Amino acid sequence: MAHIKLPEDLPGIRGLMVFSPHTAEPLNQLADILLRGPNSLSPGERELIATFVSSRNDCFFCQSVHGAVAAHHLGGDEQLVTDVKADPERAAISEKMKALLAIAAKVQRGGKQVTPEDIGRARDCQASDMEIHDTVLIAAAFCMFNRYVDGLGTSASTDPDLYRQRALMTARDGYANSIHRILADRQPR
Amino acid sequence: MAHIKLPEDLPGIRGLMVFSPHTAEPLNQLADILLRGPNSLSPGERELIATFVSSRNDCFFCQSVHGAVAAHHLGGDEQLVTDVKADPERAAISEKMKALLAIAAKVQRGGKQVTPEDIGRARDCQASDMEIHDTVLIAAAFCMFNRYVDGLGTSASTDPDLYRQRALMTARDGYANSIHRILADRQPR
Repeated sequence: MAHIKLPEDLPGIRGLMVFSPHTAEPLNQLADILLRGPNSLSPGERELIATFVSSRNDCFFCQSVHGAVAAHHLGGDEQLVTDVKADPERAAISEKMKALLAIAAKVQRGGKQVTPEDIGRARDCQASDMEIHDTVLIAAAFCMFNRYVDGLGTSASTDPDLYRQRALMTARDGYANSIHRILADRQPR
Repeated sequence: MAHIKLPEDLPGIRGLMVFSPHTAEPLNQLADILLRGPNSLSPGERELIATFVSSRNDCFFCQSVHGAVAAHHLGGDEQLVTDVKADPERAAISEKMKALLAIAAKVQRGGKQVTPEDIGRARDCQASDMEIHDTVLIAAAFCMFNRYVDGLGTSASTDPDLYRQRALMTARDGYANSIHRILADRQPR
């Protein structure tokens, strides 16, 4: 049971966003820009960073949601998502993505853990300043989302099919629209 | 020197927000709603939570900025801010604030650290569900802001007067407006 009174039919961050729609708005805008906005990193690559950090933070809901969206963008390759969570260095991803995930791993532990060597490795793999910036901000943002979801003791389904189905809608509509629809459905008619 | 090329005259998160204005927008909206929006916790109390978490994350820029804004809202009481950072349980704050800061300390370490006992203590001090929600989200958000600022190796002034002066402007204009002004000043005329 969650630490505060939330709608019982909405797991994870969804119940929190109905509880507090005024903070849901910038949170979803941030997620949409970071994960779906125009970017030289693909949506699948950015969702992988989000999933990896959520896994390191042991946030079941966030790693399930974003892992399913990542797999959807990566042609349904759920094994790749599992491999990245287990060990990015041994996963079938580009050297640039390995270097960016190494930066994300440092950010998960704390901002000061990132070293000039971590940045140098990413640059050696042709990562741009914007890609390094976005990797740090995605990793930092999921240190927020994960703490928000788990710090209030929200529940999460353990059914992988539910996350697969939702991933289709999220990939199509985005994060903000998905919450707008829930809020509209709950308005008294 | 920062890990990516940022405007040299803008320390901390300010340079990052000029580097990436499209993400600055929801980040500042979130800060304004959480720290300055209508709330049963005063702006001073909310800035104290932000300062305390930034201190636990060892983020010099964020604890300096928000510590100065907190002190401004608390009638200039810089000693109280110092006391809260050192040990909230011994600081001259309400029992409710002590309970909320204990929750914030848990969130800083990880969302799953928050226990029903932590929540029970806050409820015993008449903390509402919304106050508990806002405390968790402020603490989580500063785990993001701190990692964003330090993960990209930004610089920060060590002059307390600079933070005192800026606190006056922030308290008057808010976070989003402050960045809008910087961006407008940099537009070619």
